[in-house]
Amino acid sequence: MSLDDIDTPAVLIDLAVAEANIDRFQAYCGVHGFANRPHIKTHKLPALARRQIAAGAVGITCQKVSEAEAMVAEGGIDDVLLTYNIVGDGQAGPPAGARRPGAAVGGGRQPGGGRGLGAAFADAAEPLTVLVECDTGAGRCGVATPAAARDLATAIAGTPGLRFGGLMTYPKVGGTGDVQTFMAQAIGLCEEAGLSVDRVSSGGAPDMWQAHEAPLVTEYRTGTYVYNDRSLVERGVCGWSDCALTVLATVVSVPTPSRAVVDAGTKVLTSDLLGLQGHGHVLGRPDIAIDQLSEEHGRLVTSGPIGLAVGDRVRIVPNHCCVVSNMMDSVVAVRGDRIEGELEIAARGRVW
Amino acid sequence: MSLDDIDTPAVLIDLAVAEANIDRFQAYCGVHGFANRPHIKTHKLPALARRQIAAGAVGITCQKVSEAEAMVAEGGIDDVLLTYNIVGDGQAGPPAGARRPGAAVGGGRQPGGGRGLGAAFADAAEPLTVLVECDTGAGRCGVATPAAARDLATAIAGTPGLRFGGLMTYPKVGGTGDVQTFMAQAIGLCEEAGLSVDRVSSGGAPDMWQAHEAPLVTEYRTGTYVYNDRSLVERGVCGWSDCALTVLATVVSVPTPSRAVVDAGTKVLTSDLLGLQGHGHVLGRPDIAIDQLSEEHGRLVTSGPIGLAVGDRVRIVPNHCCVVSNMMDSVVAVRGDRIEGELEIAARGRVW
Repeated sequence: MSLDDIDTPAVLIDLAVAEANIDRFQAYCGVHGFANRPHIKTHKLPALARRQIAAGAVGITCQKVSEAEAMVAEGGIDDVLLTYNIVGDGQAGPPAGARRPGAAVGGGRQPGGGRGLGAAFADAAEPLTVLVECDTGAGRCGVATPAAARDLATAIAGTPGLRFGGLMTYPKVGGTGDVQTFMAQAIGLCEEAGLSVDRVSSGGAPDMWQAHEAPLVTEYRTGTYVYNDRSLVERGVCGWSDCALTVLATVVSVPTPSRAVVDAGTKVLTSDLLGLQGHGHVLGRPDIAIDQLSEEHGRLVTSGPIGLAVGDRVRIVPNHCCVVSNMMDSVVAVRGDRIEGELEIAARGRVW
Repeated sequence: MSLDDIDTPAVLIDLAVAEANIDRFQAYCGVHGFANRPHIKTHKLPALARRQIAAGAVGITCQKVSEAEAMVAEGGIDDVLLTYNIVGDGQAGPPAGARRPGAAVGGGRQPGGGRGLGAAFADAAEPLTVLVECDTGAGRCGVATPAAARDLATAIAGTPGLRFGGLMTYPKVGGTGDVQTFMAQAIGLCEEAGLSVDRVSSGGAPDMWQAHEAPLVTEYRTGTYVYNDRSLVERGVCGWSDCALTVLATVVSVPTPSRAVVDAGTKVLTSDLLGLQGHGHVLGRPDIAIDQLSEEHGRLVTSGPIGLAVGDRVRIVPNHCCVVSNMMDSVVAVRGDRIEGELEIAARGRVW
């Protein structure tokens, strides 16, 4: 069976490229002396999570309890950090089976932050390690000031069932310096309050190769590094040959000399733009723009002749690889042109 | 069990609203004397497809063979039009079990358009009915001129296994007049060539209430009418109370007095903008904008106090309801505040 025999649209994962990406960032973490805790949202595949751990990652990051459950159950992973605000009875913390679970809580107007988690773990054999999420500039979640971080850390340390484990942030793009500044102040305030900050966790793919410029960070979380995507190529973070995830699509119509339509639309590529123009990059055809997507159609246009015929196949690097992993039930693992097999996306659609 | 007991994020379908939407558009089709052939991509639910047929629809529209298979197998539907360019051996036409299958082919640079379908149906008991797709202004697929439509119709009529069934278009928004003009010319040319045009199929939700302004159209395809969404409300096509699909989300963080974060991000709402600003409408809170989505986070902002607390629930009308149906494994059927049960989205993720 060759790539030509695969029904399209299909998501291909080049394992050789993914493994090289894993090893390269792991080596960078080693050189600079911080831990690597990859976010599995990018691949959602237990096999790749195990490969990341084997390369030296200290554990994994998940957003949702149900994602973590898939990794614990099928990946044999036992060190999980949940970097999401856990609310509600059905979502009372990391799953059973994670021997070293951790969770992050934060939010200036959440005086009860962590209380529900504490109740859930009050009778557990070991307390749950909790990090305080800090807003260092992204404007999403997290406490807004170093003083608020100290106050929440103090509350956590005083809550039965919980152990204060340190600080966490998801920075804005280009915000490495802001992380360093915020964390220096927050660590100082925590230590004045008698709290030891054992871990400072930061993350984000766009600035992953600048992680060492915030030396207070002890642990880095990135997901996209395993596959890379058009958003990272366009930012200069990697090259096209470092992109492990591609969408294989077939030309289904060539209505005019300069326009072709492929069978990959938003149901595979999604509408994520991440600040870019267009909806992906056709490998080997930098002249082509994917200027419009419908659910099942991708429109390819160029200024000259498009040079494609019905039945031709193209490989597309999507704008954002993580979201593509959530659109399909399985991916096709390849090494170059050789097909290795089909991998079920175990953590697809896990929104809880 | 009440809505407060549902794990979030969840997609709710108010069946009473959906049924009213189905009946209202069906009545409009009846008044103006054209057939209704709803696109099932919006709901992907056999139960609602059956309800559409029961209300008077002549059959259904699907994009992909695998979607049609779900409807034939689980919905008992036997009149299916596939409005997608079918390419490849694995996609050789509508599924077995559809007694009245139809397919559309088109494309000015596809001289062989329909040949593969003809070969697949050459030995069938009955020929496959094929419509010629016409580009009346949307610039996606289809033959570009009435003369090209006549030429492709002639080729189809001469292909064993196929029966020329008429003309089809997916118009641009606001293009009802262009449909009428193109179809008048194409019908004239086809009739000069000795071909009877039994069916003229048009579609599109934004202009569905103007369908009668192209009186040559004999059949209309719309998907979104069953649920409606923010894009249609903002165009004045319907009101908020006509929106049958809502996303139930929980506030997980209120980091500042004017900002809240909910647990519905692109993994539920998607990034589809459809020309709008922001990512959905919070029912009852027109002051709130959903200005930013990550995969699991939706950021709600307002100019004054946001007045939400962690644990509060909101209902969001998404920009585009069809794509939301593709993100979840199941929806929760409700009537007002009463829960009717869970419905598996049988045709989710059917991209082939």
